Formats: sequence, structure tokens, C-alpha cells
Amino acid sequence: MVIDIPNPYKKRLVIIGGGFGGIQLAKKLKNKPIQVVIIDKNNYHTFQPLMYQVATSVLEAESIAYPIRKIFSRSKNIFFRLGEVDQVDHENNRIILGNDEMQYDYLAIATGAKTNFLNNEGLTISSMPMKSVLEALDLRSMILQNFEKTLRNSNERKRQGMMNIVIAGAGPTGVELAGALGELKQKVFPKDYPELDLSQMNVYIVQSGDRVLPMLSEKSSVKAKKYLEQLGVTVVLNTRVLDFFGDYVQTNTGQDLIARTLIWTAGVIGNPVQGLGAEAVNRGGRIEVDAFNRVKGYENVFAVGDVASMVSEDFPRGHPMVAPAAMQQGEQLAKNILNEINGQPMKPFVYKDKGAMATVGKNKAVVELGKMKFGGSPAWFVWMAVHLMSLVGFRNKLVTFFNWTKNYFSSDRGIRLIVTPFDLYEEKRKRKKELAKLEKEKVRE
Amino acid sequence: MVIDIPNPYKKRLVIIGGGFGGIQLAKKLKNKPIQVVIIDKNNYHTFQPLMYQVATSVLEAESIAYPIRKIFSRSKNIFFRLGEVDQVDHENNRIILGNDEMQYDYLAIATGAKTNFLNNEGLTISSMPMKSVLEALDLRSMILQNFEKTLRNSNERKRQGMMNIVIAGAGPTGVELAGALGELKQKVFPKDYPELDLSQMNVYIVQSGDRVLPMLSEKSSVKAKKYLEQLGVTVVLNTRVLDFFGDYVQTNTGQDLIARTLIWTAGVIGNPVQGLGAEAVNRGGRIEVDAFNRVKGYENVFAVGDVASMVSEDFPRGHPMVAPAAMQQGEQLAKNILNEINGQPMKPFVYKDKGAMATVGKNKAVVELGKMKFGGSPAWFVWMAVHLMSLVGFRNKLVTFFNWTKNYFSSDRGIRLIVTPFDLYEEKRKRKKELAKLEKEKVRE
Repeated sequence: MVIDIPNPYKKRLVIIGGGFGGIQLAKKLKNKPIQVVIIDKNNYHTFQPLMYQVATSVLEAESIAYPIRKIFSRSKNIFFRLGEVDQVDHENNRIILGNDEMQYDYLAIATGAKTNFLNNEGLTISSMPMKSVLEALDLRSMILQNFEKTLRNSNERKRQGMMNIVIAGAGPTGVELAGALGELKQKVFPKDYPELDLSQMNVYIVQSGDRVLPMLSEKSSVKAKKYLEQLGVTVVLNTRVLDFFGDYVQTNTGQDLIARTLIWTAGVIGNPVQGLGAEAVNRGGRIEVDAFNRVKGYENVFAVGDVASMVSEDFPRGHPMVAPAAMQQGEQLAKNILNEINGQPMKPFVYKDKGAMATVGKNKAVVELGKMKFGGSPAWFVWMAVHLMSLVGFRNKLVTFFNWTKNYFSSDRGIRLIVTPFDLYEEKRKRKKELAKLEKEKVRE
Repeated sequence: MVIDIPNPYKKRLVIIGGGFGGIQLAKKLKNKPIQVVIIDKNNYHTFQPLMYQVATSVLEAESIAYPIRKIFSRSKNIFFRLGEVDQVDHENNRIILGNDEMQYDYLAIATGAKTNFLNNEGLTISSMPMKSVLEALDLRSMILQNFEKTLRNSNERKRQGMMNIVIAGAGPTGVELAGALGELKQKVFPKDYPELDLSQMNVYIVQSGDRVLPMLSEKSSVKAKKYLEQLGVTVVLNTRVLDFFGDYVQTNTGQDLIARTLIWTAGVIGNPVQGLGAEAVNRGGRIEVDAFNRVKGYENVFAVGDVASMVSEDFPRGHPMVAPAAMQQGEQLAKNILNEINGQPMKPFVYKDKGAMATVGKNKAVVELGKMKFGGSPAWFVWMAVHLMSLVGFRNKLVTFFNWTKNYFSSDRGIRLIVTPFDLYEEKRKRKKELAKLEKEKVRE
């Protein structure tokens, strides 16, 4: 059917994706003279930077998710539809969702990025990505289930594989995850599993370059590495993961790492919608946009956030795929669309780099804000404050604050629950297999 | 493999099931001279009385679940194993779990109850039970997904079916669920779905008898019915649900109710383990025990809680299947097992009825404590206090308290999230189908 929403304004903007970019764009158009329809396959916005805390039993999934309808419950011009967009039919200014379709005057693609498994079947099928709340919950379940299984297995090598975890990629996600797992190893699991020798549990973080957190300064990298090692994490540098065989990880140095859990944070690619011209999408899956976030070759189609690549002298490969860039683009695009409606010229986007930070564990973080670079407890508190303030909604802020406070004093993780057991859903693996097949075929074409 | 745990004591008690009965039994044996092994298919204890609040977006699943390992982290004699017991092999004093086995000196069966679909295929496959956290999450997802789908459907009858909800059974679970859904209809959904006419949403509660909450006094039933109607719930008395066809519910009065969601709270049966003699299990699936919770015909096998039926003059059909009865039995059995170890005689179990209560909505509850019967706000506060204090763990108490406080002032439900979409897991439906088949075959035998 044709999804239509009575529109008292002249124009309708359809936003595909309720991530940082899409939500910010819509927020800045609240109660403006334009109808805005957000489409997302989830009915919630995900606060991705804290996803690793869901995977490591620190936070409930519900603390990092926020109902999109609730964000806009007081905005009469903003609507939400749950759905997956299959295709843009630009000739007719419409998008296709299954059997349904919807017209747009302006389209904003804010579909973000997805995990890049490098077309490797072993990685695609068996490694654990962490780009959605469900994937974070799967990871939590898998880690806990493996520990429970260890107690029902007498084969030494299998037990080793169940206890070990390999993380590929030492960007912020990989480092934060490794640190949180190190804390689990040192502080939580010894109490939970007194029958296991936790010194046998190995958390490896594997990085192709010669330092962790390559986007930060050398000094911060050294600090982060030290923190990781203090938490019992084995940092493996100058090494690339080549393949995963379910119970061991193959690397390019010849060193195999025994582990049943490989967490893949070593790369993302853009997640564009189908139907855009081939010239609009680059090799990294990102959509090429001009300084106004307008997709190359289109008049009324825009892209913001991770999926958008705005190449400039300062950013020859586009802006970094981080939340602040997406939010700033969303904000600017809102202004530009209003400008266009009002017959005003658009203004080019200018990125304000707000710095970078990563936390490894309690009192262990690194922060770089312009020329200010610091670590330890102060950095950790700054990291917490920034993330807490960025969470959407009072409830999520408070529950998260409470969980963090409790963990600070007790070093506990109250949420080590296998609520959605990983192996209950063979379906998931089947889908992954088919996905892998599809991606391969796509490459061949 | 043989699961063995080095045992410095003479005896091992294996408890199957980490519900109210099993946990209480283990708690009372903390640091006593006996090894205790709890086996459960989940790694957490579930606080069932608040399950309906997970289904209706009031509480996170994590607030009503508590890691079993954490409950016993300071008890050196108490152990946990994740697993499903397939069978008791009593001749050899062992239980079988998949390829594993474990010896016991004493066995306590605390496997609780399961939903009774009355061998009806339509109900088994398509109705929604609510006996586990996963089922409560499924229900939350289904209700929210149906509302989202309504906005993408133009067929009037289908839209009506997506908005309507039928609850079969007006015991405490059914009544509390109906009230919570009434609040969603009146206070939350109108804000979320301004495009829908919420007066078209019908919440039906269907009860075979002539009043709701039949275990309470006539007066309380009348009050509860009035509360339900104030919240916009349609109470359908003297009516039985006969079958469910996915989009309408057939009743014995000839009245069909259009609805895609049928929540089945109209009956439970005992959930015994396989391998007990046929004479030990009655028609309701409950295990017949004597006054010491000893299973009929066995020396060292006991049963407590919902799965146990201890028939006496006062309780010709066994004790009510409620948490206090399970906890009291668990406590008494702990004492009796210690008595036996110490060569003392066992003492018969005496049930102390602590009264009953049910909440319908904000300031709307009924409480009966002995001769004291009251309703309204006082009852609601008593209900909240009792449930809050009964929750395991400080974290769960606080997060729940916070959610309730916030809902009290804002009438909001922050957790209306489709995190585990129902239809993602076709697997579930397949399993249900097979379950239905199996049950039927069992009956035929």
C-alpha cells in the first residue's frame, strides 16, 4: 500500500535511519513547516558508544535504547514508521518498503555503517560483530554460555577455547571491550567460577598496526596499552587476523589463537540503500556527498553520518565515522533544508573536531581534547560524564549512573544473564550464512 | 561426561530448578555440612510475579532476573550448573543431562509449573503464554510490533485485529496484565500513536466463572472488575475460550473476539521431570509428596513448590501454586534434610497462608490479609512494598523502584522497545508446533 500521512505543509522529508545523524536532523526540524518521517527497522535509537557495556554485563540493553516515538512525542510534524527500506525509486521520488511505498520531496539517507567481514566466510559466519543491540546481547550470552559449558567439559583444549576471547581491532570499540572483559576476568568471574582457574582465561586484542587506538596520539596509545595489560589483556600488535575456524583464530604471523569467541571490530563499511546510481557509492560503501550533504548527481537526496563521505582537502577520505560528525551533519542539513524551503542559499558543512576518548577500565581512560591530553582517573571521570550526558532520556541516564556507581564500589556486574541464549536461534546463523553468500556474489558481479 | 564436584561432605543434594522453592531450599543450606548443586536451564532466578510488567514495558527483563551464581557467591557448599535435566535414573541415584550425568544422595525436584494449553493446537501454536522472561519479552515485542504494523495496513478488519488483545483467564496474572494493558491504552499509546483512534483498541479479559480473581472474596472481585473497567478493559464473564485462529478468538458463547494477540493465562500444570514412576505424578502433572515433601514411593527424592502436590484435609488438591507456598516448603525441606543427616526425625510441613493481593493499575489494587480486606491506594502501596522487598538484590530493587516512581508521576513506559522482535525467530514457532505434536502423542499413548 501507499503509506501516506496527511500533510498540512508543502514538503515531506523522509529520513532513513534513526541513528545519531537521522535523529539530530529530525530534532532540528521539530515544529518547523515541513513534514518529517523517520523510518528505521528498530523502534528505538541506539546509543552505540555504550554497546560494549551491554555485551559485558554492565548495562541493560534498555539503558542504551530509547523509543524513537518518545523522542518526538511532542512534535506534531514528525512521524515514525517501523520498516526496512528495500530501495529508492528516485525517478518517482519514492521509497519501497516490502509491499509498501512512500513518496518524498526530500530524502535523507542516514543508514550508518555495518560490519565489514572482508568477504571472509569464516569471519562472516562465526565471528561476533557488535553493531546492534541484539548483537551485543548475543555476545553477552555467548561469553556466559561458554563459561557455563566449560564446567561441563573435560577436554582441555575445548575448555581453553571456551574461556579464551579474541578481539580483532584495537580502535575504541575493541579497546573498551577488551578492558571490560579484562575486568570480568579479574574481578567478576573468580567469584562466579571458583572452580575454574581464571589465570587460564586469555583475552587477546589483535591489531594490524604497531599501536592500539591509532587515531589518538602515541602517548595515549602507550597509556591505553599499559592499562589493558594491567587488566590482564594480551595485546598482540603488528598482527592481522586471517581466518576463524570456530575454535581457533588464524593470524598472518603464523600464531594461532585458541578461542571460540572472536569479536570482530576490525572494520566497518557504509550501509547504503539500494537504488542509488553506482557513481554515488564509493568502494567503502559510503555515499559521496557535496559540502551540503547532497548526494552526487541528485537534487533532493541527501546523506549524513557514517554512510556519507564528504571529501575535502582536510578530509580526503571523508569525515571520521563517529557520532559527533553525524550529529553535526544532521544539524547542518536541517538548517540547509529550511534554507532551501525559504529560498535562502545553503551553507557548506564545517566539521568541528571535539576530540576523542576511550575508557579501558575503572580509573583507566585516555582523553584528547585539542591540545589537552590526559589519562587515569580524571580521564575516566570525563569519559563517564560525557557519555552519561549524551544518553537520551532521564531514565536511561539515571539507571546507567546507578549501575556505574554500583560497579565502582563493588566491581560487580549485576546483569550477567543469559536471557536470549545464543544457540536458541539457529535462525540467526542461517541468515548469516546466506548473507555471506550474497555478499560474495555481489563481489563477483 | 560425569559431572563431579569434589565433595568434602558426606552427602550431595541436587536441586532441579532455581525458582522460589529451589532457591529457598538452597539458601537455608548455606554453609551447612552438605554439598548442594542447583541445576537450571537459565543462569538466573526469575521473579515471576512481576513478569507482566516486563510484557507491558514497565520493567526491563533484567530487573526481574537475578544471576543464581550471585545469590550463592559466598556459599562454599553451594554450586550451580546450567543445563536441562532429561531424566532421573533413580536406580543409580543419578540424573541425566544430555550426554552428561550427575550422582545425588538426595534429589529435590523444584521444576515448577508450565502453561496448560488444554491440548488445543490453535492455542498451543498461536497464543502467547507468559511463564518465562523470554515469553514476556516476546509478548512486549508482539504488542508493539502489531501497533507499528497497524500504521502500514489499510484493511479495517486486520487493523482491528492488530490493535485488540484478548486475555484468557482472570487470575492474578490475567488481571494484572489486563490492567497494565488498559493503562497503555489510556495513557501511553495515545501519545505514541496520535494517528490511531485508540478508542478502537479493545482489551478483553475472558473468564469462565462469574467473577475475576476467584481466589479472593466476592467483594475484592467486584472491586477489581470496577478497576479494570475504569481502565477501559472489557470484562467478559461466564465465557470460555475454545480456540484461536490467529486473527480471532472463538468462545463457547458464540461470540468471536477479533484479535491477533491472545494471551493465555487460563491454566498451568505441573512440570515434572521424566523418569519418576507413573504413580508419583498425578493428572495435573504434579508430583505427589507426603507431609515431608518426599515423593511417594521414594526414599531420597523430594519435590517442592508448584510441581509438588501435598494432599491434606485442608488442601485436598495440594497447596496453591504460589511463591509463598514454594518458599515455605523449601525452607522446611532444608530443615528436614539437615534433621535426617543429624539422625533427627523430620517435621511435617505446615502451610501458613499469607493472604493474597493483585494490582490492576495506579492506586487500584486489592489486598486480603487474613480478615483484613482493602483496596485502592493503600492496597496499591502495600502491593508495591511487598513486591519491592521480595525482589532479589539491591540493584533490582532500586531500578524497579525508580521505574515505578517515574511511571507514577509521568504515567509513562520508557521500555516500549522491540529489542527481540517476535518474528525474527521463526524457530520459536517451529518448536512450539513440535511441542504441540509431542503433547498430543503423549496423550494418545
